[in-house]
Amino acid sequence: MRIDILTVLPEMLESPLGCSILKRAQDKGLAEIVVHNLRDYTTNKHRKVDDYPFGGEAGMVMQIEPIDRAISALKEQRHYDEVIFTSPDGQTFDQPMANAMSLLDNIIILCGHYKGIDYRIREHLITKEISIGDYVLTGGELPALAITDAIVRLIPGAIGDEQSALSDSFQDNLLAPPVYSRPAVYKGWEVPPVLLSGHQARIDEWKHEQSLERTRRLRPDLLGE
Amino acid sequence: MRIDILTVLPEMLESPLGCSILKRAQDKGLAEIVVHNLRDYTTNKHRKVDDYPFGGEAGMVMQIEPIDRAISALKEQRHYDEVIFTSPDGQTFDQPMANAMSLLDNIIILCGHYKGIDYRIREHLITKEISIGDYVLTGGELPALAITDAIVRLIPGAIGDEQSALSDSFQDNLLAPPVYSRPAVYKGWEVPPVLLSGHQARIDEWKHEQSLERTRRLRPDLLGE
Repeated sequence: MRIDILTVLPEMLESPLGCSILKRAQDKGLAEIVVHNLRDYTTNKHRKVDDYPFGGEAGMVMQIEPIDRAISALKEQRHYDEVIFTSPDGQTFDQPMANAMSLLDNIIILCGHYKGIDYRIREHLITKEISIGDYVLTGGELPALAITDAIVRLIPGAIGDEQSALSDSFQDNLLAPPVYSRPAVYKGWEVPPVLLSGHQARIDEWKHEQSLERTRRLRPDLLGE
Repeated sequence: MRIDILTVLPEMLESPLGCSILKRAQDKGLAEIVVHNLRDYTTNKHRKVDDYPFGGEAGMVMQIEPIDRAISALKEQRHYDEVIFTSPDGQTFDQPMANAMSLLDNIIILCGHYKGIDYRIREHLITKEISIGDYVLTGGELPALAITDAIVRLIPGAIGDEQSALSDSFQDNLLAPPVYSRPAVYKGWEVPPVLLSGHQARIDEWKHEQSLERTRRLRPDLLGE
């Protein structure tokens, strides 16, 4: 899978793309993640990518031309399944969307910044608008990283133990059960005795009950209740 | 405001905390963001922070001891308003929560990793569990960054033009209107003529109508409809 990220802040993406699962997936050849500086697609000598909005709104707007040039240059090289823009008013990102996107071959993610992007970009160049949640961030870089992380970790081989991804929260519409590790008693706080019993059937039953109970209490919407 | 972030991957946070608004807010003394490596709070010679889960689940679990030691060490130095854990089954983060949190003095954000953290940490040490959305990420580092960005940018002076934050999506339960910048015509795609009219009252009316129309169409839930 190839992910091209278009941004005015390529340096912001360096450390998250350079460690943990995202680095490992790239090192293993499972994902190619390429960051492009939108300033490289400007034609003015100050490499300016933003300008004042028409109509006098506060804040600056990312202009259409460098973004169109960047997307066009990429599209000349390969077919893209989606050209994604991260925006708080996009479709809310969730695990089924991450699952579906992890099967795509090539995607572009455009990171907004400043007050927004020229709306004509959204009308003519973007195929999918995604919000990672109902809150406003300084730019689309963190959302692009979150989307990238959520989908790349689903590519078989990206995380060490594939069982681990399958038992994650949301994959079966249930929250994960509580987990515990050593020591069995810490400051008087004990691990539930069943987990130390060695009786796997009882342990599995306990975990399933805990998943159901936690989902009912914390997220009844996932059960359609 | 001071934000202490506890993580096993401090290097992952470097570039996002070192640029854009988060850097500026720190340089201006508006926010102090301190990243702590949980391995510095281990007592074993391999600086190991995780171990196998009781009961045989796949994946590794972050142990209670280094996390308790890190939180205790911080609490000895100052009062914390919240000790936050980022988890997909936490309370869903949104703009009202960001607004409220931007008024706090000191918070700790604990980033989970691997299969999860020992549940006793959540029961005894955490005061608030936050999810940035219904999807699973490799760790809590990107959620911690998203929460930090969302709240720090609301501190007066953090972003250049304060008007800009006030007119963001969600602050009035309306999505922002479309924005446009030069050129007025690009590849035949035109900016709405009203924005070029110079008639501010008409422009403001158009923007408000667009906000309402976009909210009704894309996010009727925000209007309680």
